[in-house]
Amino acid sequence: MVTMQDVARAAGVSAMTVSNVLAGRGRVSDATRRTVLAEVERLGYEVDLSARRLRAGRTGAIALVVPFYDHVFYGEFAADAARAAAAAGLHLVVEQTGATREGELRALSTARLRTYDGVLLSPIGLSDADLDRLDTRVPVVLLGERPSHPRFDHVAMPNVDGACLATARLIEGGARRVAICGGDPGGSDTMPALRAEGWRLAHERAGLAADPRLALDAGDHTAAGARAGVARALGRGAEVDAIFAVTDQVAIGAVAGLADAGLAAGADVEVIGFDNLRIAREVAGGISTIDPGSAWIAERAVGLLRARIDGYTAPPAHLTSSATLVERATTRDRARTQGRTR
Amino acid sequence: MVTMQDVARAAGVSAMTVSNVLAGRGRVSDATRRTVLAEVERLGYEVDLSARRLRAGRTGAIALVVPFYDHVFYGEFAADAARAAAAAGLHLVVEQTGATREGELRALSTARLRTYDGVLLSPIGLSDADLDRLDTRVPVVLLGERPSHPRFDHVAMPNVDGACLATARLIEGGARRVAICGGDPGGSDTMPALRAEGWRLAHERAGLAADPRLALDAGDHTAAGARAGVARALGRGAEVDAIFAVTDQVAIGAVAGLADAGLAAGADVEVIGFDNLRIAREVAGGISTIDPGSAWIAERAVGLLRARIDGYTAPPAHLTSSATLVERATTRDRARTQGRTR
Repeated sequence: MVTMQDVARAAGVSAMTVSNVLAGRGRVSDATRRTVLAEVERLGYEVDLSARRLRAGRTGAIALVVPFYDHVFYGEFAADAARAAAAAGLHLVVEQTGATREGELRALSTARLRTYDGVLLSPIGLSDADLDRLDTRVPVVLLGERPSHPRFDHVAMPNVDGACLATARLIEGGARRVAICGGDPGGSDTMPALRAEGWRLAHERAGLAADPRLALDAGDHTAAGARAGVARALGRGAEVDAIFAVTDQVAIGAVAGLADAGLAAGADVEVIGFDNLRIAREVAGGISTIDPGSAWIAERAVGLLRARIDGYTAPPAHLTSSATLVERATTRDRARTQGRTR
Repeated sequence: MVTMQDVARAAGVSAMTVSNVLAGRGRVSDATRRTVLAEVERLGYEVDLSARRLRAGRTGAIALVVPFYDHVFYGEFAADAARAAAAAGLHLVVEQTGATREGELRALSTARLRTYDGVLLSPIGLSDADLDRLDTRVPVVLLGERPSHPRFDHVAMPNVDGACLATARLIEGGARRVAICGGDPGGSDTMPALRAEGWRLAHERAGLAADPRLALDAGDHTAAGARAGVARALGRGAEVDAIFAVTDQVAIGAVAGLADAGLAAGADVEVIGFDNLRIAREVAGGISTIDPGSAWIAERAVGLLRARIDGYTAPPAHLTSSATLVERATTRDRARTQGRTR
């Protein structure tokens, strides 16, 4: 096996200089750098990355900190992020916070103690002041709905655009009473609030008014919560042409709630979800949904984290993915289109 | 705040003795032990567990090592395990292996490097020889289908019993051509093989022969794989009265595959899944399933790990949970029963 000593001898420099060139540190002239790299390539020297990382106090591991292990969206996102991490030479570990401030602080403190190289975090419980104060010894890239923070890279979902796209499609399909299931029309900066804003905006653009009485409860955003919410609303006589469900889990529950009332999703009441979960393709003939570009988000977030771990010091980036409408059996054929918001 | 020094002074012993009593180590007479513990209680001294753990080289964290982040079962199991861990004063972190030997070895090596206090592992790729050789510096409790290993505690699922219970129910309900979707009648010691064994056994007990041509393919055990497998089987004219789907994800796909062929699960073809996933309650009016006692498994596994971390040295325990039949809309009312295998 070719060693660092072999490279040093061939290049006529010390092993320390070879090490510095490979690590991108120390003062090394351009000519020396080129000579060393040429010998590395000619001799086929392979850097033992894991050993070097350990010497540098690195673990090669990053954490994805999610609110809940058992929300299907986070399981699928974790798989996407693990794929992106592996491609970047990193091992991905997942922690859950319960969507609380304590849980998020604990994950960040555990991360520091065990020296993850970096953390992907969706802050929900942490305040902006908490984020200001965050004394992170490792890079942090933010995910999620909160407005971008000046200190951190942030890769966001197209919450408003995606919800607007779904609702616009339902209105274009002829629905006049488009309900939102699981939205929070009065809130701000949360998933339910931003998706409700998209629902409202689509109505406004179509010259209609979103009816706040059509904001159906989805409980804790599980399928069971949404099923009960839709059943309750229909039971008290709510008239609904179509439902925009704020997540696919909520959409699965909404389809079940409609079925409980003898209504078929698609044929009687159109339904569009959000997330493009794999499981939603097989339920009720396939649930129409907004694909928020989760794989793109995972790749960009891991890429930014990898760059920060490697010493990238440019100002924080703020990226948002694109929303795509995916039509399946819960919307009707007559206005079938594949749309992009940008 | 009461300190260890205060307790030592009140008990008339050294702080080291107080420390030894609280840690359960060193040679301390019974009388001294009782005096110290009485003063601890009288003064209300609170042991700073997290600080002590760090001094003892502990992190307070355990890892749950699963094959895939994006299989719904593991997400729900992780949530159960996190609850059990929190109750035992431990923080649960999840890692995925991709169900490969390399992934499992990497998780165990990472675990050692970053000093988890213990690991819950479902070995799939690791051989028995690998497990023999495992040089773990932290306790490991095994989960999953593999036969128990003499070195490790193991908490298993009732794979054969559960599959037998489901199949027996379908036969008792009048089905004579009971298919299995996602089983592996020729294999051994894997989930698909053990559940196929239960399917075969139920036939044998009913004086029937399981027809190997009714072993329907479920691809990679996703809903999409099962949907395609059921559609293919029906397309080539397979006659099926009922389907035992080896997981709820497979059952969701089987229900969709039946619907593609114009058949309604429950009314036309009875379907029973396995896992009792929360999402399966809301799909197709609720999918009948085997509840394998996942919460019980999580509690026992974390309890054993907690005990091993605390120095428990008894021989390895081998536990298996109980299977319960949960009937919903994909089985018919006429033989509705709630059964237990033991």
